Amino acid sequence: MASNEYPKAPLSRVKRLNNRAAYDYKTIHHIINSTPVLHVAFNPAPSPDADPFPAILPMLGCTGSFTSPTADPATGSQDLYLHGYVSSRLMKQPSTANDADSQGTPVTVAATLLDGLVLALTPNHHSCNYRSAVVFGHAELVADEAEKLYAMQLITDNMLPARWANSRIPPNKAEMQSTSILRVRIAHASAKVRGGGPNEDRGDLKDEELRKRVWTGVVPSWIQWGDPMPARANMAGEVPEYVEQWRNVQNKDGRIGAYEAAKEAE
Amino acid sequence: MASNEYPKAPLSRVKRLNNRAAYDYKTIHHIINSTPVLHVAFNPAPSPDADPFPAILPMLGCTGSFTSPTADPATGSQDLYLHGYVSSRLMKQPSTANDADSQGTPVTVAATLLDGLVLALTPNHHSCNYRSAVVFGHAELVADEAEKLYAMQLITDNMLPARWANSRIPPNKAEMQSTSILRVRIAHASAKVRGGGPNEDRGDLKDEELRKRVWTGVVPSWIQWGDPMPARANMAGEVPEYVEQWRNVQNKDGRIGAYEAAKEAE
Repeated sequence: MASNEYPKAPLSRVKRLNNRAAYDYKTIHHIINSTPVLHVAFNPAPSPDADPFPAILPMLGCTGSFTSPTADPATGSQDLYLHGYVSSRLMKQPSTANDADSQGTPVTVAATLLDGLVLALTPNHHSCNYRSAVVFGHAELVADEAEKLYAMQLITDNMLPARWANSRIPPNKAEMQSTSILRVRIAHASAKVRGGGPNEDRGDLKDEELRKRVWTGVVPSWIQWGDPMPARANMAGEVPEYVEQWRNVQNKDGRIGAYEAAKEAE
Repeated sequence: MASNEYPKAPLSRVKRLNNRAAYDYKTIHHIINSTPVLHVAFNPAPSPDADPFPAILPMLGCTGSFTSPTADPATGSQDLYLHGYVSSRLMKQPSTANDADSQGTPVTVAATLLDGLVLALTPNHHSCNYRSAVVFGHAELVADEAEKLYAMQLITDNMLPARWANSRIPPNKAEMQSTSILRVRIAHASAKVRGGGPNEDRGDLKDEELRKRVWTGVVPSWIQWGDPMPARANMAGEVPEYVEQWRNVQNKDGRIGAYEAAKEAE
């Protein structure tokens, strides 16, 4: 099993309810690549005493391998690519820290998908069904033009398959310069997945009066993609098939996944 | 206006596209209280050299004021309450850092709501519609039993209005001990909101062939809450009215909000 997994480290080892934990590449990369918006945390100040707060940026990104583009995302081949802008604080970090010894800016990236609200007899046993991954790694600006282009297409098509080929490509020189891509070399990572119905207090379960009074169960939830609204400048007519297909698959998978997550173990 | 806003600080001041920025209490608190899962970042190690990565935890929480419970959430009265467990790394932080001089553990809390995917003529002009808030503050464990109970009810009812009163309350002694509440005194905060259709490259807009080939517009998105699934132990019959009403309002507001966000300015 070890070869399918990230190494466990103090920060990545799941402490609480560790039966919900996963360290395998497949689970972690799938959660990251299914989450539309990632949260990226880093320490912006060179001296941590100057400002004690980490920064958090919502960013787009997904996993990939520039050196082995056809590698299975369910393997340890993957880096994490993030899309951003040269003017942002995070993007400025790597170049200043980027001396010969540096591995890049330490970043932590969280991806969380909510699958439902779990309603128990008592508020303290309420919970959420979710899939959550956290990745720890070192981020560097991608300087190589070919790798940058690879990552731009990867992130675009991870969000909406085939969109890259169906838009105006390649980016022009100004666009290549104004867009920055960060490559995160993943040091360690973990996932946590919660599914099923409520875990009740044993005393509550014996109280039939209580059980007749308080409704318990799961309200499943997922990201719903609505009917696309054309831009005022749109001259391409109806919504293309590849967009509608992506939307329908996302909505169906989201709904089915949320109901599957809500099922209680037999 | 200053009295309606958080002070701007180096970390909270929005640098890029600052016409999308907001600092007012109302916008920031509303985004936090509408986001089901918050992302909380902090530095776990006493010495930052020991482990360079910030930690991120997905947590539940909302704003409130124990000393002025009826205060308008659109004012500067609000603390941020987070729900967690005594065993987690974050919860252990405040007590160790909690000497007389300490203001608590520095934390950064991000709340992001995705309102849609913005499809432009070229991948580089693709974007997302979103509402995002980031809060910087000092977290302390709530020791006072009355404040703890206040925050538990606040967080429960912020997620699902009236659920607290419709479940088995109050929590017993063991439940009060096993549940921890963090109070974050907000130091500064900012929000960023993106709405509308794609912002295109001027050259692309003049290219009618391109505009006839590439569909542009917005795919609105929101969190959809599905039909509740009863727990196996449920004896309370049909889904209660207050749950259905909450769900219907959430779905309707989410959908309408996403379509409103997709509209282009006249």
